[in-house]
Amino acid sequence: MADGFEHLFSERARGLKASMIRELLKLTHQKDIVLFAGGLPNPAAFPVEEVKTICQDLLSGDPDKVLQYGTTEGVTELREQLVERMRRKSIDCDLKNTIITSGSQQALDLVSKVFIDPRDMVVCGAPTFLGGAGVFASYQAQMEAIPVDSEGMPPDILEDRLWKLHRHGRNFKMLYMLPTFQNPTGVTAPESRRKKIIDICAELDMVIIEDDPYCDIRYSGDDLRPVKSFDKEGRVIYMSTFSKILSPGLRVAWLTASEEITSKLVIAKQSTDLCTNTLGQYISYEYLARGLVDKHVELIKKLYRTKRDIMLKSLKDYMPEGVSWTKPDGGMFCWVTVPNYIDTTEMFNRAIANNVAYVPGTAFYTNNGGHDAMRLNFTHPTDEMIRVGVERLAKVIEAEIREHAKHKPHLDVGKDGMIGGV
Amino acid sequence: MADGFEHLFSERARGLKASMIRELLKLTHQKDIVLFAGGLPNPAAFPVEEVKTICQDLLSGDPDKVLQYGTTEGVTELREQLVERMRRKSIDCDLKNTIITSGSQQALDLVSKVFIDPRDMVVCGAPTFLGGAGVFASYQAQMEAIPVDSEGMPPDILEDRLWKLHRHGRNFKMLYMLPTFQNPTGVTAPESRRKKIIDICAELDMVIIEDDPYCDIRYSGDDLRPVKSFDKEGRVIYMSTFSKILSPGLRVAWLTASEEITSKLVIAKQSTDLCTNTLGQYISYEYLARGLVDKHVELIKKLYRTKRDIMLKSLKDYMPEGVSWTKPDGGMFCWVTVPNYIDTTEMFNRAIANNVAYVPGTAFYTNNGGHDAMRLNFTHPTDEMIRVGVERLAKVIEAEIREHAKHKPHLDVGKDGMIGGV
Repeated sequence: MADGFEHLFSERARGLKASMIRELLKLTHQKDIVLFAGGLPNPAAFPVEEVKTICQDLLSGDPDKVLQYGTTEGVTELREQLVERMRRKSIDCDLKNTIITSGSQQALDLVSKVFIDPRDMVVCGAPTFLGGAGVFASYQAQMEAIPVDSEGMPPDILEDRLWKLHRHGRNFKMLYMLPTFQNPTGVTAPESRRKKIIDICAELDMVIIEDDPYCDIRYSGDDLRPVKSFDKEGRVIYMSTFSKILSPGLRVAWLTASEEITSKLVIAKQSTDLCTNTLGQYISYEYLARGLVDKHVELIKKLYRTKRDIMLKSLKDYMPEGVSWTKPDGGMFCWVTVPNYIDTTEMFNRAIANNVAYVPGTAFYTNNGGHDAMRLNFTHPTDEMIRVGVERLAKVIEAEIREHAKHKPHLDVGKDGMIGGV
Repeated sequence: MADGFEHLFSERARGLKASMIRELLKLTHQKDIVLFAGGLPNPAAFPVEEVKTICQDLLSGDPDKVLQYGTTEGVTELREQLVERMRRKSIDCDLKNTIITSGSQQALDLVSKVFIDPRDMVVCGAPTFLGGAGVFASYQAQMEAIPVDSEGMPPDILEDRLWKLHRHGRNFKMLYMLPTFQNPTGVTAPESRRKKIIDICAELDMVIIEDDPYCDIRYSGDDLRPVKSFDKEGRVIYMSTFSKILSPGLRVAWLTASEEITSKLVIAKQSTDLCTNTLGQYISYEYLARGLVDKHVELIKKLYRTKRDIMLKSLKDYMPEGVSWTKPDGGMFCWVTVPNYIDTTEMFNRAIANNVAYVPGTAFYTNNGGHDAMRLNFTHPTDEMIRVGVERLAKVIEAEIREHAKHKPHLDVGKDGMIGGV
């Protein structure tokens, strides 16, 4: 089939770029490679037998219901379960505040569709989840990135920066944050910061997207209240997903926001996909209603806690001096910072040649940061391969350091527990 | 949760309106109502036992595969099956031309995202599928509606209108058509028109969306080649779906276009939902690979052919003079035109009071047409209820005609086989 219609593409389409991770993963076909690059749950974390039983029951019980179109806002029984679940997390909500989306990625897309005009400003972390940055860019938002430290976005820096830009006539519409076990750094914002960030956004009349896919996957430390639980005005749009606690292949997530916002999002969703797949919604509903989720999440946490511990121990055992990393209490990622004369994008091919893959830090920056950092996923590889992979990666980094030492004196950079690019 | 953030909505969000059908259906809660208003397949058309067996096999065989994230373009095995299927319909395509979407509604959304800038002009039928008109509006397109007759869009009218507007400086980017058993009218464009419409769009440098959800559900007449099969330049974006031949609740559809277009759509889809639900894709794949689809489609056609015949016979038996309707060879809908002094939107409440519901014609017009028309779905009600519903509807229309006759002399309008609003 012939090409030649690019000149008809929309302005927004011209700006769309393929995901860096996606392109990188195409390079990683070796059989023995250790893939720290993905963001995949471990298949051992899927409740396969439970899903199998549920599917049989659903298709034997009321098949017409699970194979038919559903309402745009989502299956009512599922939304009722989620309202209960959100209330247990101190989020005051009701059925009208809670809708189902086709993954949290669709929630981000719908919120962008409803809020972002071209050239609107959106605040995010530096680094931040690239699927978030990608969707805002697809609606032609301009991004303002606030450096993330070991507790997320520092409110004082955020406040200074936004007010300075505000005085120069720039107005912000939205702040995007993953306050708990952030992708890509794994860091968590304490409650004091959560409250302060709401106050700052209230002063500047901004809405907040709280993207919270990992909250239930905590390995150490105490549960924190979501940002949304401190929200008195309906300013926070909360989103979470079944991808990490059940299955990402079902593409079922949810969003909780004020009725004004959810009803506009439902209208936007109508023309986007009519409804989220009904079978996946009913599987998710039964998974909650049968009380399987909390029991299964304990298994997932046990599986992943071991993997996190092996990754942190391996980093300590193998990484050369000058390399630092975050120590996440949950989630799926560690963030590793190397001496700043190393460019992790340039180093990527040498890592692949040594059978280990990561995501270069620059993928998570909307500005120019991250060249001296990388994201490592610890949930997907086997326990043994985590150790092997970190050892391989450490050797690649050591080679870079040696190469550098040949040419100029060593500069000591990177501080333990701090985030690259700060 | 408080409201008060509407002032932050995007320009496009301010223009979003809830679907008229959706709002109307909320009014139809009576137990005995005959719903001609929906667009639902009949649950008796779902291959329940087949889906049940497939689910068990999938979750016993390779559960990790069907519960994990998939690639954005869709499951390769499924796309391979669809390439074969498209080739049998004379569409020359390959794997790189074929992607999976979350229902055809998402295909429409992605194409809009990639092609439409605010104020771009899109050509559609009058009437047309309102989910198409809705998504184009959500990207702030301006619509130009070409009156549809009993064979779809008349090429001569289309050509005259577009060139006249072109000479006035208006440029069109895209033409949207459902050439086979169009929603809402049920009419089909003959091959001669299909070819001429491609030629007109080539002259004006436009792309064509061929939305083809019903092609396999033909009850009479001969199969026609899709518009896409006549496309030598990659100008036509073809889309179809499993919604009518398997299950709409799975939300699995596909799109075939030039590589240039599909690769841009895949990038847009990445930030929209990452991927379509994997379980639904594998169910669809097995449904094709096991050779179940064509056998099952014969059952669906038998079921629906009877329903169409009952609707056409009932219309003939019960409708008063001055009422006309289309005689679809396939699909799910009849389009009924009433004397033009009757407003079907105003009549709607009286129909509901008489336990029958339809969609008023205006819902399908992007301009002001359709006040004297309505869409009737014949696939969802039972055979007996189709007859009962048409009888009820005929009585409601008769009452309108009598009421009108009291006030002024009867004008003879509406010609059998022609489309309202032409």
